[in-house]
Formats: sequence, structure tokens, C-alpha cells
Amino acid sequence: MYRSHTNGELRLKNVNTEVTLCGWVQKSRDLGAMTFVDLRDRYGITQLVFGENQSEMAKDLGREDVIQIKGTVIERESKNKKIPTGEIEITVTELTVLNKSKTPPFTIEDETDGGEELRMQYRYLDLRRKPLQENLKLRHKLSIEIRKYLDSIDFFEIETPYLIKSTPEGARDFVVPSRMNPNQFYALPQSPQTFKQLLMVGGFDKYYQIVRCFRDEDLRADRQPEFTQIDCEMAFVDQEDILNTFEGMMDYLFKKVKGITLDKFPRMDYATAMEQYGSDKPDIRFGMTFNYINDVAQNKGFQIFDDAEAVIAIVAEDCSTYTRKELDKLVDFVKRPQVGAKGLIYVKCNEDGTFKSSADKFYNQEDLKAWADKCNAKAGDLILVLSGDKATIQNQMNVLRLHLGNELGLRNPNKYAPLWVYDFPLLEWDEDSKRYHAMHHPFTSPKKEDMHLLDSAPGEVRANAYDLVMNGTETGGGSIRIHDKATQALMLKHLGFSEEEANAQFGFLMDAFEYGAPPHGGIALGFDRLCALFGGQETIRDFVAFPKNNSGRDVMIDSPSPISKEQLDELYLDTKPA
Amino acid sequence: MYRSHTNGELRLKNVNTEVTLCGWVQKSRDLGAMTFVDLRDRYGITQLVFGENQSEMAKDLGREDVIQIKGTVIERESKNKKIPTGEIEITVTELTVLNKSKTPPFTIEDETDGGEELRMQYRYLDLRRKPLQENLKLRHKLSIEIRKYLDSIDFFEIETPYLIKSTPEGARDFVVPSRMNPNQFYALPQSPQTFKQLLMVGGFDKYYQIVRCFRDEDLRADRQPEFTQIDCEMAFVDQEDILNTFEGMMDYLFKKVKGITLDKFPRMDYATAMEQYGSDKPDIRFGMTFNYINDVAQNKGFQIFDDAEAVIAIVAEDCSTYTRKELDKLVDFVKRPQVGAKGLIYVKCNEDGTFKSSADKFYNQEDLKAWADKCNAKAGDLILVLSGDKATIQNQMNVLRLHLGNELGLRNPNKYAPLWVYDFPLLEWDEDSKRYHAMHHPFTSPKKEDMHLLDSAPGEVRANAYDLVMNGTETGGGSIRIHDKATQALMLKHLGFSEEEANAQFGFLMDAFEYGAPPHGGIALGFDRLCALFGGQETIRDFVAFPKNNSGRDVMIDSPSPISKEQLDELYLDTKPA
Repeated sequence: MYRSHTNGELRLKNVNTEVTLCGWVQKSRDLGAMTFVDLRDRYGITQLVFGENQSEMAKDLGREDVIQIKGTVIERESKNKKIPTGEIEITVTELTVLNKSKTPPFTIEDETDGGEELRMQYRYLDLRRKPLQENLKLRHKLSIEIRKYLDSIDFFEIETPYLIKSTPEGARDFVVPSRMNPNQFYALPQSPQTFKQLLMVGGFDKYYQIVRCFRDEDLRADRQPEFTQIDCEMAFVDQEDILNTFEGMMDYLFKKVKGITLDKFPRMDYATAMEQYGSDKPDIRFGMTFNYINDVAQNKGFQIFDDAEAVIAIVAEDCSTYTRKELDKLVDFVKRPQVGAKGLIYVKCNEDGTFKSSADKFYNQEDLKAWADKCNAKAGDLILVLSGDKATIQNQMNVLRLHLGNELGLRNPNKYAPLWVYDFPLLEWDEDSKRYHAMHHPFTSPKKEDMHLLDSAPGEVRANAYDLVMNGTETGGGSIRIHDKATQALMLKHLGFSEEEANAQFGFLMDAFEYGAPPHGGIALGFDRLCALFGGQETIRDFVAFPKNNSGRDVMIDSPSPISKEQLDELYLDTKPA
Repeated sequence: MYRSHTNGELRLKNVNTEVTLCGWVQKSRDLGAMTFVDLRDRYGITQLVFGENQSEMAKDLGREDVIQIKGTVIERESKNKKIPTGEIEITVTELTVLNKSKTPPFTIEDETDGGEELRMQYRYLDLRRKPLQENLKLRHKLSIEIRKYLDSIDFFEIETPYLIKSTPEGARDFVVPSRMNPNQFYALPQSPQTFKQLLMVGGFDKYYQIVRCFRDEDLRADRQPEFTQIDCEMAFVDQEDILNTFEGMMDYLFKKVKGITLDKFPRMDYATAMEQYGSDKPDIRFGMTFNYINDVAQNKGFQIFDDAEAVIAIVAEDCSTYTRKELDKLVDFVKRPQVGAKGLIYVKCNEDGTFKSSADKFYNQEDLKAWADKCNAKAGDLILVLSGDKATIQNQMNVLRLHLGNELGLRNPNKYAPLWVYDFPLLEWDEDSKRYHAMHHPFTSPKKEDMHLLDSAPGEVRANAYDLVMNGTETGGGSIRIHDKATQALMLKHLGFSEEEANAQFGFLMDAFEYGAPPHGGIALGFDRLCALFGGQETIRDFVAFPKNNSGRDVMIDSPSPISKEQLDELYLDTKPA
């Protein structure tokens, strides 16, 4: 036993106890006759006192040295109310330096002076910082509670394989050459989708797994090539059952981990979400929904509006006092290439009942009053208007709305607004490949009442698919699956698979559907993202113990890296110059 | 809601309840006026009765059809005591066939008529069988309880990356080509060894993870290229702390999952295990330990013994009545190439106090009495003797001992005999590569008191390494690690790494050791094997949902498989003919 107690547990009641402690030297203050050392571990900080006769032994201690001390707990004279051990300190009688530390390349403090890349390289030091310790503790806690909840309602966690088969649908696979099967490759799973469906065919009824998934995508900020998913599937259920089950899980987690009681989650179909928010993952922590003002804004001689498919207005409450400069900044914002709007029209609803617009040339006070009425804008509000192609404008207005939400402090990270979005389109047109792709995945079932549109208007077919949205972020998504061979074959045909390709890729699944596959469906939640959400943060990187950088590199272990000629030969592979 | 109840929950108290049930048709008996159907799901079997007016609708039901029924619970006339629902049945009023099933290629019964390969191909059907359902349920239960235990003593589960770096030490790695980093590769982890050590450097103190590991080995029976490990590490601990912690975990699991209270685990050092059992994983459910009888067996003119380094005897209790034929079979057994003995000498200790030996020519009754005394053999026992090179004979005798243990019914699968084996050698000589390999792994610390032998007699250096053995199987293994750069560098040097190679491969770890690495150690337990052990079975394959066959293939999804030219090009790879 290296220690009798941790550095987080000693209190006044332990005074006079002989203790042995271990940990890292957080800081050392040499006051001549006495030296004070803050000793840190995962559990907290305890103050050590090296008295007159002991001060000598403490004098060589440096930051991050690992030490073991023996001593006696005494009451502090000047208590520190900021830490739980602040009422006591330890008079040290024996010191053993277990391991010296070089001076760390950045400070091990809540706010560190280390840059991103340096902290990645010395991740093991960054992990000592309290914010990261807390993040990983939260992650552990969440995983424990998720399992507790699902176990309590008869889910089994079942492990599915990581060495599976490459499929052309979806994102790019990471592949793994097989030595025993020359010139053949496994793929790492983008999700255990087909396996969880086979578990339903296998009678397992309620499955989950907290599981790693892999996508070889060009990494955007805050995407990792490997990520963790809470993967779930149920048999003999309809959409309602799944929504209720996982709403129950989220309720449980918020209560257990955050002490927050959530209201019943609102639900919104995809069409409404797009119409009102221009997004399939609306942040409903604030309003500012879309108003379509074509009828009051068109045919007044303003060409830009007159030519537009849609004229969409949002209302920024109490913003009529925006200065010219502030308004110009908004115009600049929407004109940035990332947003791509041509311009922005505003209407100030002045406190005195008058209106001031950037299109005063075309609209009189009565016209603008009609706009305000249409938008339910009141005196003191600011109306912002974009026009053009409907889908494009919805998208641009969504970006502007979220921007204003941030500007106006309407997106409180400590407020949680969950939302179910359902009835997603089954297919979406891909301009690059000139064909329809599955919006969710090829195993999602079309809504029965839309099946007749599959040939005539494939883009209009809705799917039994749903997303769990939280504060404007997609937290999870799922669907009721196809469970019969005929529908699955039809779906693959519509996705451009020949019968031969369909059988080569998904024959095993369609075969399985012929042996008594039950109706089933499921959901997958992004676990890294969920952790960040519960931690009240935007980026997932600091909720992953050992993340990779934006080039998919682990800069700490320097991976990926070349392998030996012998390894390549054994795998019957040659590399080609890039 | 597809169902109001499962097929395992209805009892007499539910009589007269209207229910909706779903499941698979286990069997159907058409008695003319009535048809009885056994409806099966994960939870059990419920008997359905289609009465006179309903019989018609049941007539087309086939095995494994998925159906939904509505009906009323009634008391059975002839009760079935074998199943929990055996006191009731359901009179059916409505039947919906949710999905027809083709006739399955093998019977979905506890004892199936399907061969291994066929069952692998239709794994989703095999998984419907009760033994496999029970196995995966046990696996789930074990994983829940393991986490509960470790969580209760402040371990955090922390996920480590799957895309890591290839290392030459240990088994062969599976590698993953990187598209974004041309001609560079990730490797899949054989274990999270270095990462869990870095977590200790990072201050996480108590880590665990139930984690997939990968080894590209030529597969022996019952080995999988991917397997699951309970991976643990602790800081500020010595060997004793780790043994106690994980003995506590095993105690907890046996109590929780099997209702068995285990005694304190015995401990045995490696040298003793080899001396007494000829194995580093002795099955101590039975005795039959080794007796070294050189002093009484040599110098009596029996050349074979006289020339031998070791003459080892074991005693098979109450086996003096073995027939000539039975003894010949034992001789044949040890002469098989897999065992490789030249011959086997026996001594029958007859009930009348006389001895009968296969070496009577050289040994008189008094000589044999001395053997018997030396071995503590009593009248009625059978002594079996092998001789030759000590290490070889220990190994052969171990095989014979286990064989006899099986023959004599001494290896009861419902008896559990755990054992800690400790003080393993640090290094073992490899004849092929003519160098020392790390017996455990390169991060295991040598025993301080043996350090001086590292140059002079490296094979004699003992390590702070230990195995948890259960019923003759290695269930887990671990060690106290090296935590300073100098020792780690020395160790790598002894393993044949140049300084350059050592830095390229493990520089990050040795760097980390310079920034205040705490003393630490850990253990990893094979989870698949643990499940089989708790299930009282020898093979792990049926405790893995989707196992691969002995060529590393998943015959169900037909993987590995070729990938497209485009995929290879994107990865800057060419395949070479095998």
C-alpha cells in the first residue's frame, strides 16, 4: 500500500491521524522556516507542511514530482474554504521522491498556457488538468448510468465484430488487409447496423452497445476518425415505442447526472422543422421562427422580392435600436461566402409605432405595418428579411437565426431543449453522383402511405426515421427498418444497386429477412457529443482521452506511420507513391 | 405497441386477461378441432390454443413464422411443470402473420441438428437457440457486474483508441492503411497497454475498460482474431494491492452471478508451479503433484533412468486395478507426437502390499516400496513415471496429469479452483530468433533483487508478473510496470532494440516517464474465456455473438473480401499475387 488516504478525503475529523499520501507536487512555497507543498491527485489537493527540521528535505521538490509522504493531520490555522480539505494540513515526517519530473512544457492548471498542438503531444500531461479529469469522469458516469438504465429495462449489451465487410453505401470505410486471406480486406464498421438487425432476427429483442465506429472522412473540425456510439435496436416496436424508450433514457440521465428534470420532449416533423427553422435540427431554446411574407412583400415594385420564390422574415426582439454599424455587420455576415446571401433587408419597428426599413423606397409605413403584423413583431423589434430560392433561403436564414441567437445570448449552454424530429425524407438527390442516396441508410423503411411515390416522386417519400435534437445539435438518429426481402431489394434498386451488387453486399441480410425477421427499429446516439453536451461544451475533443488531430494523426504516438517491407510482403501489398 | 406481454411472463394470476403476444412459432400441433402452437421469444414459451372456429387460421403456420396474436389467458387443463408459463395458455381470437419464414436449415432447439459451418453461416438462426441466448445473457450480466464492482471502488472506464501504431514486439498486428497520410498505417491494438500506462501518468489512478483487442495470429481452435479483454491499471500500488483488488472482483462475480462463495485464492510462485505441476497454469482442482524420485530410482542399472536429468512420478489414486489394456493406452497417449515421451513406467501398488512394475527387471519390491514411500502412494494406487530432460519431462508429465484428471473425472466443470501464480521469469529465450523475448511484455518490471542478473543470467531474472489461473486456464495476467526511463531503456536494449528503434517505437512512453510517472501496475482478463468459464464450457465461440472461423472468416457476411480498384487507389496500395 503506497498510501493510506487520497488527497481528497482528509477532514477535521481526521486530525491527529498518521497518514501516508501520494501524489504530484502542484506547487511548493518556501517560507524559510517552513515549506508548504500542495499535493495533488485525482481526488483533490492536500496541503503539506514541512516544518523547521523538515524544510530542508522539501527544498528540491519541483512541479509534477511524484512523492510519497508520511505525516500527521493537523488543523490549519488559516483555513481555505475553496477546497474540501481546506481545514486541515499534514505535518510531514517522512518524504520519498517516487519519481522526479522534468519541467512540464505547459502548466498543469485549470487554465493552461499550452497551445492545442503541444497539449496533444503531451496528452498525458494535459489529462492531469482538472477540466479534463472532470470530463472523463463525466464520461465514465454517463456510461455507467446509460448501462444501468438500459439493463433495468431488459436490454442486453451484445458485442458485434470490428472486422467486418466493406460496403459502398455511406461514408468511406477504413479497411484492414487480411494476411490469411491474401488480397482480401476486412472493413472497420461505420456502425454495427446490419449486425444489430441480425440480432433482432436472432431473437434478442432489445440490444444496445456502447461501441466504437470508424469513418475515413476528410475531417472537419471536431470530427474524429473513430468515435463512440450508443447503438440500440428493438424488435416488435413501432416508432412511438423507440421514442418513448430513449426519451426515458435521456430523462434518466439528466436527472441522475445533472439533477435536471426535463419536460416531455416536443416533436416536430421534418417538413415543419424546415419550414419554421430552415433546419432539420432546430435549436428551440429560442423562438425567432420563420415568417413567409411573400403576400405582403411582393408586387410593390421591389424586383428582388418580386422575383423570389420565398421572402422569409425573422424577428429579433427588442433590437430596433441596432445602430447602422450593427446592421451593416449583419449584412456582412449573411454575405460571407459561407452563408452566401445576396443581401439583407431590415425593418426597425420603432418604439413610437413608426417603421424604418432599408427598402423604404418600395414600401410605405402601411406596407411595413403589414409585414410587422404578419411576423407578430411589436414596437421595439427588428425584422430581418432574406429572399430567393426557398430551400436556399431557409438554409441562409437558419444560419442568420443561430448567429443572432448567439449574439443575443439566447443559446444558454445550461438550458437543455430536446426535440424529436420525425418523418425525414427517405431519399435525397446527390448532384455529384446524379442519383438518390439514402438520407438515413439503406435499411430505413419508407412510410407505407408514401410507397406509391417511390417510382413517380422518390424525393417525396417519407421514411420512418427520426432524430433526437438537443440545443440545435443532432444527438441521435434512428429509424424503423425494412424487415422483408422484397422491400429491401426495392430500396437497393432505387439506390442504384444492380441485383448482383445488392446480393453481393447485402445478400446475407436479405436472406435473414426470409427466416422470420421481426419488425424492428432502433437508434444510435453519439456518445462523444452527448458527453460534451452534458459537460456544457461545444467541442468533443476534450471528452475523448486520446483524440486525433484534423489530419487524423495521433501526434503523441506519431501514428499513422510507415510499416516494414516484411509486414507489407506478408500482406501481399505494395505501396504506390502518392 | 406490438405486444402487451412477453412469452415468459404470464401466470395463473393473469387468467382472463386480454393479451397481445408476439414471437416465433416453435411448433404447431394440429389436433383437428384444436391447434396448439408454442410461441417463443427471448423470455420463454407460451402455449396458444386455436379453438374450433380459429383452427383454420392456424393451419398454415410453419416453424419460425413471426406472428402476433390477440387472445385471453386461461388456465390449462394439463399443466406443464417444465416451463414457468406452463399453468396457462391463450385462447386466440386474432392472428396476424408478421413475417413468414422459410424452413430453417437446422432445427431451432437446445440440441440442434445443424453442423458447425452451417450454424456459422446462419448465425442469426443459431442465436435463436436457448443455449446461445443464455450464453449472451450471461455475458451481458457479467459485463454489468464487472462494471458495477469496479465503479464501486472508484475505477473509471476510459476508452482508448483503436487506430494506433504498429509495434514489432508481441504478436502480429492488423494494420489499417491511412488515406489522408499516404503510405502510412495505423495498427489495431493487441491491447491498450501503453495507453493505460499513459493514463496512469495522466493521473487517472484506477482505470479499466472492457475492450476489443486484435491479433493477426494463425488461429488455433478456439482463438479469435478479435477478442475482448477486461483491461485494468492502477497507480500507487504494489502487486499485493492488485491481487487483492481483482480477487475481490472475482469473489464478487462468483457470488453475484453463480451464487458461489470462493475461499481465499491460493498463491504459488512460478518455480513451484513448474516443479509441482510442470505448468504455469496448474489445475489445482485435483492433486497428483510431481514427485522427483531420482534418488530412489537411479543407479539400479536401468539405463534410461540413470541417464535422465529428472525422473518424475505421479500417483493415480485407486488405479492399481488398471488392466494391461488401460495401461497400454496410457503408454500410447504419452508416446503420441503431441506429447512426445519415449515411454512410460508404471508401478501398481497392489492391495496386498506387493508392487508390480513395468521395470521389474531392474527394481525389486524393496526398491518399489521406496518409490511408493517417496510418492506417498498407498495400497491400491498406481504410480506413473517419466524420465529425461527436466523441462521436457515436466511438460510431458503435465499433459499426462491433465489427461488422467479428465479420465478420472477429477476436473469437475462446476468446481472452481482459482490460483495466483507469481514471480514469472522476465525473459524467455527464443530459439528461432536467438534472442530473449519478454515473457509478459516489454513494460513489465524486473524484481529489484534480481536486477544484478540482467547481464549475467538474463533468463533467471524474475518479474513482478502474475497470472490468475482458474481450473488450469489462464484467466488473466498482469504485472507491475517499469515507470522510469532508464529501466525501460535497459529492458528494450535487452530485448534487442537499438536505441534508435527503442525511441522510434516507445519514445513517447519513455518521454512520459520523465514527467512524474507514478509507480503502477495492472492486469488484463480474457472476457470471452471468463464467460465460457462461468458458463461451464470449454470453448469461447458460443459466447461471442458473431465469431469468425479458423481461417479468420466471417462465413455469414463473407468477409474478408476483395475491395475495389478505386478503394486501393485511394489508399495508394497495390495487391500482389499470393
